[in-house]
Amino acid sequence: MGQGFFGYNPPDFVLNAAKDALNRVECNQYSPTKGRPRLKKAIADAYSPFFDYELDSDKNVTITTGANEGMLSAFMGFIEQGDEVIVFEPFFDQYISNIEMPGGKVVYVPLHPPKDGATKTTSAGDWTLDMKELEAAVTDRTRMIVINSPHNPVGKVFSKDELQAIGDLCVKHNIIILSDEVYDRLYYVPFTRIGNLSPEIAKLTLTVGSGGKNFYATGWRVGYLIGPEHLIKYVSAAHTRICFSSVSPLQEATAVAFEQADAHDFWNQSKKEMQAKVKRFCEVFDELGMPYSDPEGGYFVLANLAKVKLPEDYEFPPHVASRPRDFKLSWFLIKEMGIAAIPPTEFFTEKNAHLVEDWLRFAVCKNDDILDTAKERLRGLKKYIH
Amino acid sequence: MGQGFFGYNPPDFVLNAAKDALNRVECNQYSPTKGRPRLKKAIADAYSPFFDYELDSDKNVTITTGANEGMLSAFMGFIEQGDEVIVFEPFFDQYISNIEMPGGKVVYVPLHPPKDGATKTTSAGDWTLDMKELEAAVTDRTRMIVINSPHNPVGKVFSKDELQAIGDLCVKHNIIILSDEVYDRLYYVPFTRIGNLSPEIAKLTLTVGSGGKNFYATGWRVGYLIGPEHLIKYVSAAHTRICFSSVSPLQEATAVAFEQADAHDFWNQSKKEMQAKVKRFCEVFDELGMPYSDPEGGYFVLANLAKVKLPEDYEFPPHVASRPRDFKLSWFLIKEMGIAAIPPTEFFTEKNAHLVEDWLRFAVCKNDDILDTAKERLRGLKKYIH
Repeated sequence: MGQGFFGYNPPDFVLNAAKDALNRVECNQYSPTKGRPRLKKAIADAYSPFFDYELDSDKNVTITTGANEGMLSAFMGFIEQGDEVIVFEPFFDQYISNIEMPGGKVVYVPLHPPKDGATKTTSAGDWTLDMKELEAAVTDRTRMIVINSPHNPVGKVFSKDELQAIGDLCVKHNIIILSDEVYDRLYYVPFTRIGNLSPEIAKLTLTVGSGGKNFYATGWRVGYLIGPEHLIKYVSAAHTRICFSSVSPLQEATAVAFEQADAHDFWNQSKKEMQAKVKRFCEVFDELGMPYSDPEGGYFVLANLAKVKLPEDYEFPPHVASRPRDFKLSWFLIKEMGIAAIPPTEFFTEKNAHLVEDWLRFAVCKNDDILDTAKERLRGLKKYIH
Repeated sequence: MGQGFFGYNPPDFVLNAAKDALNRVECNQYSPTKGRPRLKKAIADAYSPFFDYELDSDKNVTITTGANEGMLSAFMGFIEQGDEVIVFEPFFDQYISNIEMPGGKVVYVPLHPPKDGATKTTSAGDWTLDMKELEAAVTDRTRMIVINSPHNPVGKVFSKDELQAIGDLCVKHNIIILSDEVYDRLYYVPFTRIGNLSPEIAKLTLTVGSGGKNFYATGWRVGYLIGPEHLIKYVSAAHTRICFSSVSPLQEATAVAFEQADAHDFWNQSKKEMQAKVKRFCEVFDELGMPYSDPEGGYFVLANLAKVKLPEDYEFPPHVASRPRDFKLSWFLIKEMGIAAIPPTEFFTEKNAHLVEDWLRFAVCKNDDILDTAKERLRGLKKYIH
């Protein structure tokens, strides 16, 4: 339940497309550096309904080697030595090094956990951004801001009002918005794309997507960025210098995946299945009376383990004993219950880590039998809850 | 005959391994950032016979997203602002931007074409490095040198003596050697690996390889670096920050490819087939009395078109007219003969471009019928040769 990879395969229509692609000479050789035309078109077609303008597959879409290298390409394309990039805490850890590689400076703004998150189950939407804190973080050097919705690890889907406020601030200060939307098909409340809130905001927004996250294949390394031509061209140029081109047969398969997803009712099923997994897994926290942050999107659940009393004489190895309480909880769960979970202080700077030291992140993108085994093991926590 | 991708598919045992991998859940999800253990072991096993020490798959091998991103990872791992990197001309163009990304400065040293290359066919080995020029290029800031053998586009396989002299110089000045050996299975004269010349040189050498070049799948993006642990670990760390991990199912297929290559006699056949293609294609130059540089390795042929007299009144578009003669030759061949070839001044700085303005690069990694068609079209040059 630790890392966010899937415990099951992509659907057959996607796997078969990959096998078909392997039979074709041109699908095994270099693709154009900006991506295979068929994939760019499939993405333009799949995403145009979400935007007020028709996406041009050559101008508004570029393919990258996973969303990770896509974000790096964006940072490399725009950041110069000393430029500042605003990142919310908790953050996906790769953001930080990727911003620092071209010489950028990360400026952190925390998301605040729900005030009563330790005593009752709340919505992931109750993790809040303090707009005053965000405004205070903007300086003359602020070049970009990273948004992540649906959010990892919080599970928050930023509301339209929140995104509007962020977008307006970015327009005011001419800040490029890098919107990491890799969980964009898994939302359980209304989902807004910041890149479509207004023409002014759209001009500043790069939307990041992931074939691997969408189609259960995190090892395929097919990502994409969508946005206005004047931004996309710098991302493409940086990507060409970083990876030259991206993996051809799996780009082709991802093209077919987007082309056929609706016909297979894949998006609806995918969302329904993941929401069912969240519900199935979280039952154990309800049983245990352990509060959690109910995700509005994605496949991560943050549970609050404030009620768990670790045995006072329990011996932690030094590299765990020296870390915040979530590391101790995580160690205890692995050793005593056989359950892996991620300590979320990993996603925070030291200054704000205290905000989440009672929480743990569980990835529910696993087969139901694994979820059931995990639940059974977690029931062992009962005797430590007071 | 332009770009160096294959006109045919990987062998069936490799394609089938890729299809098998797609059926396995763990082969579709994230791989470890340093590469799949099976692939690292397959490479350690396949390359240990070439080195005087037994390669440890965890310490001496790291997997990257193609050789390109592997070289970028090496530059990112070692280059600091202002460090100098020596690169031979002609160079693979990605080297330059990849060195400059972490703030490195490229210092160029030319390979000199054979003196009588315009009048008779010579060996690619006759392109020579002037060791005095190389020594003069070394400064206090020289951090790395890039070697490429078999060489693209020259087709030269550096001799043991040449590599020994380069290696000794690097030991003397403590310069890291990045040896791009992506054509390492296609050599038609004895092939020496600089990383194995002496323990002192080995300590400084990173060898770069390519699954895509070896197994006819340039679109698979599976590269690898081999070297001492104290160098490899920095490459792995940089790679993790650039791409996180590399494409899983094709890493697995590449592992099987290395494991089974000998049993299928793949390496011998591959070399024999490519050498036959070189021979088949170059016949047309013999026929035309047009000299070429006979490759010692790889799949590129440099032909010398000094004898081709372009019509004096031929109209070139401005972006071609303003470039050296090889661009005009290339344009003329595309428009009048229907043959694409790469103008090699692209691989030179302006200062040294004049060295190759009569040459063109042809990629022979194509099906025989394509080679035959290309030959037939090239015969159209006869009337322009004086």
